[in-house]
Amino acid sequence: MNEFELIARLTCGLPTNESVVTGAGDDCAVLDLGIADKLILFKTDAVVEGFHFTRATRPEKIGRKALARCLSDIAAMAGTPTAAVVTIALPQNFEPEFVEKIYDGLNALAREHGVAIVGGETTTNPERILISISLLGTVPRGKQILRSGAKTGDAIFVTGELGGSLVERHLDFEPRLAEARWLAEHFSVHAMQDLSDGLAGDLRHILPAGMGAEIWKSAVPVSRAAKLRAKESSNAKPAFAAALTDGEDFELLFTIAGKEAVKLLDAWKKKFPNLKLTCIGKIIADDGILIRDKNGSHKLNAHGYVHFA
Amino acid sequence: MNEFELIARLTCGLPTNESVVTGAGDDCAVLDLGIADKLILFKTDAVVEGFHFTRATRPEKIGRKALARCLSDIAAMAGTPTAAVVTIALPQNFEPEFVEKIYDGLNALAREHGVAIVGGETTTNPERILISISLLGTVPRGKQILRSGAKTGDAIFVTGELGGSLVERHLDFEPRLAEARWLAEHFSVHAMQDLSDGLAGDLRHILPAGMGAEIWKSAVPVSRAAKLRAKESSNAKPAFAAALTDGEDFELLFTIAGKEAVKLLDAWKKKFPNLKLTCIGKIIADDGILIRDKNGSHKLNAHGYVHFA
Repeated sequence: MNEFELIARLTCGLPTNESVVTGAGDDCAVLDLGIADKLILFKTDAVVEGFHFTRATRPEKIGRKALARCLSDIAAMAGTPTAAVVTIALPQNFEPEFVEKIYDGLNALAREHGVAIVGGETTTNPERILISISLLGTVPRGKQILRSGAKTGDAIFVTGELGGSLVERHLDFEPRLAEARWLAEHFSVHAMQDLSDGLAGDLRHILPAGMGAEIWKSAVPVSRAAKLRAKESSNAKPAFAAALTDGEDFELLFTIAGKEAVKLLDAWKKKFPNLKLTCIGKIIADDGILIRDKNGSHKLNAHGYVHFA
Repeated sequence: MNEFELIARLTCGLPTNESVVTGAGDDCAVLDLGIADKLILFKTDAVVEGFHFTRATRPEKIGRKALARCLSDIAAMAGTPTAAVVTIALPQNFEPEFVEKIYDGLNALAREHGVAIVGGETTTNPERILISISLLGTVPRGKQILRSGAKTGDAIFVTGELGGSLVERHLDFEPRLAEARWLAEHFSVHAMQDLSDGLAGDLRHILPAGMGAEIWKSAVPVSRAAKLRAKESSNAKPAFAAALTDGEDFELLFTIAGKEAVKLLDAWKKKFPNLKLTCIGKIIADDGILIRDKNGSHKLNAHGYVHFA
């Protein structure tokens, strides 16, 4: 049983109650707690030393990243973040100054987005630092955007550029909160999520059962970092593979009706002139993900990786 | 700088916003998100292998304990739990069945209390299992009970019995949710918290600046487990010291006006005949905690431990 199989088994039997609008499995849970015009969003996420950062990472950036990941999930629902609680698990010999700097980075980002930090817990994890953050947010009632609403013929969009995030950007990315809210207000977005594991894997989460996607290779916005790395070493991933599979992009992936695509691109350029928005393909009626280039199209394999000849 | 000094420094500079009614430092945060008749409670807590359980602990009990600790904090505010998110950090070689059993215990307790589990995250922590849970609850608007409302002359109460929890009870304790809500509905409870670190240390959290407590030694309900341990070995803590300092009791500690004490005890006996409620002392106008026995009274030292001659 791998991680995904385990999660699927665990998710099936979870207790629920009448407050749950959307439970585990989307970017955030959606709860109805009786606020007249709003629903509650609820999300947890963790970063672990050695996996999401190292002891050499500037502590301010560790704290920033831990919160930014959760903010990105609130963005993926077109929500507004409100309040967070933070658990930091630390080796017994930790430097208090190091922890304060983690909080400095976390607090600064929280202030930028109007988020209150309302509770914390420090506990012991002898071998490595682990930070778990839970975030509450709100979304106008009925305006939450789930992963599940894509339709055949939808245009698929991504914000920003993909790949090479681990060079640096994974510590500095901007959660696309304002962009997502603007999208939800002005367009009928059918499905949305944030890109955390890489486009190839994440794209499957927004494909309804039996449907697929056609991705136009030349349209995918590959980051400069991914291109540079590919150039610098013949052992590095080809830049397009990096854009599909590197992960930690934390850009928005969403779909809208194909006939709205041009209108959206025009309006976006005026509203967010400094952030790229790209139509990378479309939702199709056949299962699976096709990558289309000038030589034709080939299928992505089940694990989300393309075999490049 | 020790853990408490660090927490004090971190807590000072936390970002806030207009939704925050009570921020970090109480059993739960209290948020006003615009529900007509309710406020939101928000809490996070973590358990770590080697500290709160071992690899030999039955996994169902690990999951149960992780959630029960958070439920106890909701109880301490006289709230009702609603929904939780769960982060489980695991060694790479984990047995999926072990994780499923953790969830079995957690889910069973969640169902007992009508709590929905609405999200989860599994991540890697190579050396030990760590479970972080965040819990949302509600409380009737204005009816939350904080740690800060004790008054001189208040009677101090505890539910259940104290000490010896680590023998077994720390895995099986019942969060006092129904009891706390009943208290808040029928009496003017001035201050309340749950006992996690031991009476001697926790009592300080409900003493307003400049006030103290007088505890009547013979009144403190010492658990059978603590008494047995003290008898079995001359190296063990005296039973009374165990009741003061063992921790993980997860009973309620609260104060009400002294003149209400007898009425409360009578009503409690009718409502909860199977759970002891004990008046163990009173709030006094002088700083510090006095332990009073037949020979007079002596002060608890600053670290929460009594020196027994």
